[in-house]
Parts: sequence; structure tokens; C-alpha cells
Amino acid sequence: MTDTDSTPSTGGTDHTAKAPSRRALIGWGGAGLALGAAAAGGAVAMTRVGNDVDPAGADAGGAVPFHGAHQAGISTPVQDRLHFAAFDVTTRDRAAFVQLLKDWTAAARRMTAGQAVGEGAYGGLAEAPPDDTGEALGLKPSRLTLTIGFGPSLFTKFDLAAQRPDALIDLPKFAGDALDPNRSHGDLCVQACADDPQVAVHAIRNLARIGMGKVVIRWSQLGFGKTSSTTPGAQTPRNLMGFKDGTRNIAGTETDRLDKFVWVGEKDGPGWMTGGSYLVARRIRMHIETWDRTSLQEQEDVFGRDKGEGAPVGKAKEHDEPFLKAMKPDAHVRLAHPHSNGGATILRRGYSFTDGTDGLGRLDAGLFFLAYQRDVREGFVRIQRNLATDALNEYIQHVGSAVFAVPPGVRDADDWWGRTLFAKEA
Amino acid sequence: MTDTDSTPSTGGTDHTAKAPSRRALIGWGGAGLALGAAAAGGAVAMTRVGNDVDPAGADAGGAVPFHGAHQAGISTPVQDRLHFAAFDVTTRDRAAFVQLLKDWTAAARRMTAGQAVGEGAYGGLAEAPPDDTGEALGLKPSRLTLTIGFGPSLFTKFDLAAQRPDALIDLPKFAGDALDPNRSHGDLCVQACADDPQVAVHAIRNLARIGMGKVVIRWSQLGFGKTSSTTPGAQTPRNLMGFKDGTRNIAGTETDRLDKFVWVGEKDGPGWMTGGSYLVARRIRMHIETWDRTSLQEQEDVFGRDKGEGAPVGKAKEHDEPFLKAMKPDAHVRLAHPHSNGGATILRRGYSFTDGTDGLGRLDAGLFFLAYQRDVREGFVRIQRNLATDALNEYIQHVGSAVFAVPPGVRDADDWWGRTLFAKEA
Repeated sequence: MTDTDSTPSTGGTDHTAKAPSRRALIGWGGAGLALGAAAAGGAVAMTRVGNDVDPAGADAGGAVPFHGAHQAGISTPVQDRLHFAAFDVTTRDRAAFVQLLKDWTAAARRMTAGQAVGEGAYGGLAEAPPDDTGEALGLKPSRLTLTIGFGPSLFTKFDLAAQRPDALIDLPKFAGDALDPNRSHGDLCVQACADDPQVAVHAIRNLARIGMGKVVIRWSQLGFGKTSSTTPGAQTPRNLMGFKDGTRNIAGTETDRLDKFVWVGEKDGPGWMTGGSYLVARRIRMHIETWDRTSLQEQEDVFGRDKGEGAPVGKAKEHDEPFLKAMKPDAHVRLAHPHSNGGATILRRGYSFTDGTDGLGRLDAGLFFLAYQRDVREGFVRIQRNLATDALNEYIQHVGSAVFAVPPGVRDADDWWGRTLFAKEA
Repeated sequence: MTDTDSTPSTGGTDHTAKAPSRRALIGWGGAGLALGAAAAGGAVAMTRVGNDVDPAGADAGGAVPFHGAHQAGISTPVQDRLHFAAFDVTTRDRAAFVQLLKDWTAAARRMTAGQAVGEGAYGGLAEAPPDDTGEALGLKPSRLTLTIGFGPSLFTKFDLAAQRPDALIDLPKFAGDALDPNRSHGDLCVQACADDPQVAVHAIRNLARIGMGKVVIRWSQLGFGKTSSTTPGAQTPRNLMGFKDGTRNIAGTETDRLDKFVWVGEKDGPGWMTGGSYLVARRIRMHIETWDRTSLQEQEDVFGRDKGEGAPVGKAKEHDEPFLKAMKPDAHVRLAHPHSNGGATILRRGYSFTDGTDGLGRLDAGLFFLAYQRDVREGFVRIQRNLATDALNEYIQHVGSAVFAVPPGVRDADDWWGRTLFAKEA
């Protein structure tokens, strides 16, 4: 894998060490009027910021490192809130698109560190639109992670067809699918996770703003209440059906299982995906009102676990090894279990959603399912095919679907999202 | 005001002292299978809970008292998250509706205390639907408040026309309104605020479930990131335009201002509203992408404050007294200020919202504005009329609207939501 284009963009330099925290900018902001009148630009702004920087490390808490072999936001302990956006690329200019990826990387590097986009806070010039939209000023980094993915349709553009991974298949139609094209697919995705929703929303909004004229948001989804935990020992969260969800999920510390089931290895190919993963996103609407009228026994039969503790049928504790044959043949846990799927295992990172009410007074609520895997064919597809007879299907419907190749991590301050894909032919 | 119907409903008894916390129920839940097999009912369930109750007070933290002269959720320090629902009443049976108000009160009393709905957690019987949907089990009370309101259209039902307060007007059409009837009005509303969105969503969902066949959700709205603070000294949160919002809001501790501007007094009438308030809810869409392309100077001119600190034009600090004449004539702060509106003052309790993307790739985001006042005519209407020339109108649009009479608080374990309205003629 030749890296012929690792030159940093102007926005790509790492200002982490000297740049202001979001909190520090508040102090600077008080001089907004004076600054506006003087139109003094970045230098003055930086000085002002410098006067007001918090003691070292005061705002470091809650920042997840942006650089690494893998992108953050996959094996990272799951944050409380999600803003997920799928974008379509509108530019046909490859250089402009590569520049956008570099600009996005620079912005993501700053925002995940708790910094405003742009060195001079609002750009320094009162006559210009601010570099940062401002609503996250004063908020902590909140463990923000930003994770980018490339959808199948991207590989029909920019002469990328030969680089499309075999593992990035177009998902087949599954039994019961009722997919809304306006909530499906996309050339790109960015998953923003943070413990504060305003921080996640701020990040997606600023990336959309930076991408104006080159990309447009195709659909987006907010989520809350992490339904699956990648933190070992943490209490397993409950989904909106009231059941614990993610009991047997892969923990971020299980490097063996991550290597086996999540990360793309050198031998898997293509080379540009080494260290990456594949993401399947599914918007799963729950028929909440029907579920709520269902007896406890039926609910527990459907899942194959009891509702309170989450113990598998016939067992006492949540983490007891399930005895699948004690469950009904169509129990969800039985059908989804690796033993029923030739060992297929995925890392789940889903969030609950509630998007108001549909025209019939029913909650538009459910699970925004996010799963990472080393090969979509061996992971989600195999499991979802087996769920065709799932008893749960009476109470849910998949209404949105997308799949993305998630490239490896950004190594350092000179690296950028997608370099391994785009640099070799840049 | 005669109280002829203060007899508690079966669900109205206060079990606060002896009932299990959400967390304690987790321990019980582990016996779900055994309980289901035995169908032992509430008694056994309570015993099991009793075995597993946390040490006294361990879960009391984060519970806001439900009983009081005023409903909680108005002057209560603003929680982080909102789920707001407007309902239409579908039953024509007055007794059935009154029973629903009592059942709702009982459920609200338990949920705000961090307890599951129903004494026996899932009802005790495996053959029955659970009394509680379960997704808040194990979560803290999270400062949940539930606040009910009665819309103008309710007073056309159940022979209530004579009880409709003069102050509960149908809002006039304001300049620029583009109201969606599917996001407006409603016979009832419930405002659920909590620091955990799953707790707020759980509460609305369970009230909707309890109301099945009597009421139906007309519309609902999720919100986050409290844009106005009723906590004195707390940092003022920022709205999605990046500006601090709520600098001069009424603090929950300012009893004089609350009595003057928020609570309905005995002399105001009607008697059943004494201790209540009036709520105006407006869904205000922000033209985010247009705003983000606007210069810092223009943004600050529009608001009349600087963006970083939030100081009024010409002043240094956020809480400095504004000098209105230094602002442009159409500045938002100038036009909304009490000095420009004959002293009109409202308690704001709004939340930011982001509901994905519209068909044009633009964020469907903005401010879900909630304002409480003693008289709608003297509060919101006066201010909103003056905002007809607001420079901010170029960047926002009101797309949903509703108004509600918010009755006084539930006094004790025998009291229920709406008693002062319904009991006198029951």
C-alpha cells in the first residue's frame, strides 16, 4: 500500500497542544464586540484565548483519543447519545472531495478534543460566518467520537469501482423488510457518539456545514440510552421493549474477539481496509402499543430471557450460559446466538430512538441497530437470515438500512480520513 | 371551591414509603420465570422485592417531590431532557375520563419517585401484560417531573365550557406563523422532564398505554440541552444558534416574580386554577444552514448580544443590564425585553430539538419553546406580537403551537390531577 499523498492539508495540523478548549473560548467570547470592531483576526483571538485557558488538563477529562490504528467509536465504551448522519456526495471533483475529507478530519480532531472548529473560534472576522456554530462552547468533550464510513454507492463515483471490498455487499432483502429509501443507504456516513446530545448534534451539524456544496445529508438519526454496552461489567441497558439488550456483546477490551470478528485483517483485503471494519445500520421500528398489550409470559418467550434479570430460560442470572434447547424454537436469543449461526458474531452498538408520533397516534420508536463486523456476509447477513422465523418479528419492522466500509483509524496529525483509499490513486 | 370528590381511586394511595425503587425491582426480576410459573401474584412479588430493597435512601437521590401547591416541572430547576406529548380525548364518558386522571396521577406519583407503574412490578401474573413497560427498571428517578395541562378544546367536551378560563385564549395568528396542525393543539398535554431521556420517554409511553381507549397521542416532541435555566447561578445554556438563551429568565427561587408572573392567584379566577399556570408551547424551526452562512456581526446584531459571552451590546458581561437603545431597533433582545412590552415577563423552559433531516437535506432542528405565565394575554401574546419585526424572523419559523391551562399541584396522596376542575361537578 503506497502512500503518495500524506501531505497534510492546511487544516490538518495538530493544534491539540496549544489550541483552546471549548470552555476557554467562553472567556474569549466576552470580547466579541471589541474583536468585531477591531476585526483583528486570528492572532488577537489566540492571545485572548491564551489569557483564559483553564489549568492544564481541567478539560481533558472526557476526551477520547482521535488517533489510532482503528477509528474511535467502535470498540470505545458506548456513549449515552448518538447522532448518525448519512451523506450523499454531490461534487464530481475528486480533488475537492479529498480536500473535504482532510477538512473534516481536521474538524473532527478538534471537536473530539473539546475544541471549537477553526483556530480563531469564530474565525476572528466579524464579517465572516463563524468557523464554529457555537452551541457546544462551554461543554465538555463528553467522550465525543466521530467515525466515518463509505457506502457501496461511493464506489460508483471517482473511479473507485476496483477498490470496493468484496465484503461490502449490497444487503439482500430480508423477510419482513419494509425499507424506506429516505432512511436508507448513503455514499458516506458519520457516526457521532457523545455523552451529551448537544455535543453530538453540534459535530454532525458542523461537518454538514463544512461539506456544503460537496455533500448533503441524506438522512440522519438521533439515539439515546445505549442499548448495547461494550463496557465489561457495566449494567446491561434495556431496549424500549424493556429487556436487557447486549448481554453477550463484545467488550472493547476483548482484543482476541475484536480481531476475530470486528477488525479487517491484512489478509482479508483490500489493503486500504486493514484495521477497518464494516458497519450495518438498521432502523428497527417497534410496534410499541402491540408489545405493551402482550403478556409477560409471551414477551419472555419471544426473547428467551426473563424480563427483570435478563436470565436465559431456565437459568437464574443474566450472564449464565444460555441453554438454547430450553427456549422456544423461534425465541430471539436462540436464533441470534452464535451456536445457531455457525459462530457468527457482531459488535452491536445500537441506540433507542423515539421520533415523536406517527399519523395514527403511535410512538415512532424503536432501536437504531448498529453492528460492526469483519465481513458483512459472515456477520449480520448470516444472523439476519436466521432471524426470518424470529418470534420478535411480530413486534418489529426494519424500516431503514445501510451498510458502510469503515476505514482504519487516523494515525497521527498528518493523516486523514480515507487516505488509504484515496491516496494511492490521488 | 368545594371539593366533593376527593375520595382516592384504587390507584391513588401513596405507596411511596414501602414500594420498591426501580433498582430494587431488578433483583426481583431474576425470579421472573419462577414467578411466571407460580402465577403467585402481587404478594409474593412484594416479598421478593422486599428481600432486595436498596438501603434506605440509596435511590432517593434525584427524585423531585410530586406533591405540592404547584405542579412540579414549572419552577423546578430545568432537567436535561424533555418528552412532551399532546393528547386528544377519545372517550365521551366523563366518569371514565376522571378515572383516567386518577390512574395517571397514581402512575405519575410512582414514576416520579423512581418506581415502576403498578405495585407488583409486571403485575404479578405472567398471563397479563406487565403493569410497567420495563425500560426504566434500574434507572434512577433522574429528577423526573410530569406536568399536565388542559387545552382549549377540552373545554368543548364534558360540559366544561363554563369552566374555561378567560386567560386560556385561542392564540391569535402571529406574523410569519406556518403552523402544522399535526404539531399543534391538543385536549391535554403532559410535559415529562428528566435528566435521562429514557426515563422521560418511559413516562409518556406508560401514560399513553394507561390511557388506551380513552386518549390518543396527537403529537409529541423530544428535546434536549435545556436552553433556558431556572437555576440561579447556573451557566446559561446555548440554543442551536450558538447563543446563550435564558439569561434573564425567572429563577425557581424568585418567589416574588413567580407569584407576579407565573402562578395564577386567587383573585385571577377561575377558582380551580388557583396555584396553576398557563403554558404556551411553540415548535420553532431554525433555518440552520442559512444561519450558519451568516456573518458573526449579523448574528450578534440579530440577537443584540455577543455570541461568546452573551453580553448585551456595548456591555462586557452576560448579566450586565442591557442598554436597549444601543441595539438595532429590530434586535431580538430589545424587542423581547419587558421594557418593550409593558413589563410582560414569562418563565421559559424550552429545549433544543433535532428531528433528523427534511426532504431537502436540511436539519429539522430548532427550539421547542415552552413558556409559563399567569395570563397568556399578558405574557406570550404581548411579547410575540412585538416580535413581528424581530430580525430573528429571517432565520426561524414557528411551525407548531399549543396552549394549555396547567392546573395547581397535587396536594397529597388522596389528590389527583384535575380534581379542582372535575370534582366540583362530578
